[in-house]
Amino acid sequence: MKIVCLDLEGVLVPEIWIAFAQKTGIEFFKKTTRDEPDYDVLMKERIDELKKHSLRLNDIQNVINTIEPLPGAVEFVRNVREKYPLIILSDTFTEFALPLMKKLSLPTLFCNSLLTDSDGFVKSHVMRIDNGKKKAVDCFHQLNYKVFAAGDSYNDLQMIRNADYGALFCPPDNIIKENPDLRIARDYDKLFEYINDGE
Amino acid sequence: MKIVCLDLEGVLVPEIWIAFAQKTGIEFFKKTTRDEPDYDVLMKERIDELKKHSLRLNDIQNVINTIEPLPGAVEFVRNVREKYPLIILSDTFTEFALPLMKKLSLPTLFCNSLLTDSDGFVKSHVMRIDNGKKKAVDCFHQLNYKVFAAGDSYNDLQMIRNADYGALFCPPDNIIKENPDLRIARDYDKLFEYINDGE
Repeated sequence: MKIVCLDLEGVLVPEIWIAFAQKTGIEFFKKTTRDEPDYDVLMKERIDELKKHSLRLNDIQNVINTIEPLPGAVEFVRNVREKYPLIILSDTFTEFALPLMKKLSLPTLFCNSLLTDSDGFVKSHVMRIDNGKKKAVDCFHQLNYKVFAAGDSYNDLQMIRNADYGALFCPPDNIIKENPDLRIARDYDKLFEYINDGE
Repeated sequence: MKIVCLDLEGVLVPEIWIAFAQKTGIEFFKKTTRDEPDYDVLMKERIDELKKHSLRLNDIQNVINTIEPLPGAVEFVRNVREKYPLIILSDTFTEFALPLMKKLSLPTLFCNSLLTDSDGFVKSHVMRIDNGKKKAVDCFHQLNYKVFAAGDSYNDLQMIRNADYGALFCPPDNIIKENPDLRIARDYDKLFEYINDGE
């Protein structure tokens, strides 16, 4: 029996912070871990910047609500869920993802979360666990599932390599170059074909 | 961070075999593990009976498709999924559950599966793992989730007792009598209140 694990941003929805920067016009939010490799530092800066612009969690969700899943993602996610249990494994935050998850008909998402203060401002972020994507695959193995995993980034590689089957989805060139042994899907039809492999 | 684990039959949808017996008028399918305690023997008998009535998997799914989730279950499941990851832990079979899962907007289901022959008849059942409900709770603990679990039957007790929070949902009298320490929810409002406890 097979379970499917998919990364969220870049696979089913756009990169949320980048899209958020574009929607709000606030250049700062384009900063990623490529500019600030320490994720904790980066998140603290983002939270300060949100406060500077008086953006409460609710405002952020309203902006994110105007972002759409990637073209074809809604149908793809439905097709996967009609055949397999699907778990989305992401480093994002439940509260940011919610507007997009609603548009995907609320698939199950394992990620992190945010704390807000009494005024509704984001106070801090809570990382649930280190290396959560890889550990989730370990758990599904314990439950006697064959795991299929796909993602597009560095933080997906351990998950994909720990799975029984996997693929990169629309990865950037550096990921392709450094992982020549991994299969690549450039559209949902191909990804669904890989998911169904071996049946 | 919290994850919610719910039993399926008796909690979100009717007991599938009982409803199937009522829909088809085939009395045999009312037989449960109370009549035949060996689940493997019972399933083999059911599969023989399906064949006797020329019921292919597709016919069975068409019959099950006329069964509805319990009143209020669709809204309840949506409310839970907007706040928490939800995993439905069941001993049923993916293929039987599918028509009902579609009506619940395809929540994630961990269960067992069926093998069909080339004519589309059910050939055998495949149990994924022993004690899968309890083991799933163990896994979610490993992923640093607080687990809420609810169910109505004997096969839910270990899951509920292994979870951080839990409740029985509309349980029969014998389960209540033998588990006087467990909380009882008799409707979805109460169950949702228990799920939100401690927040």
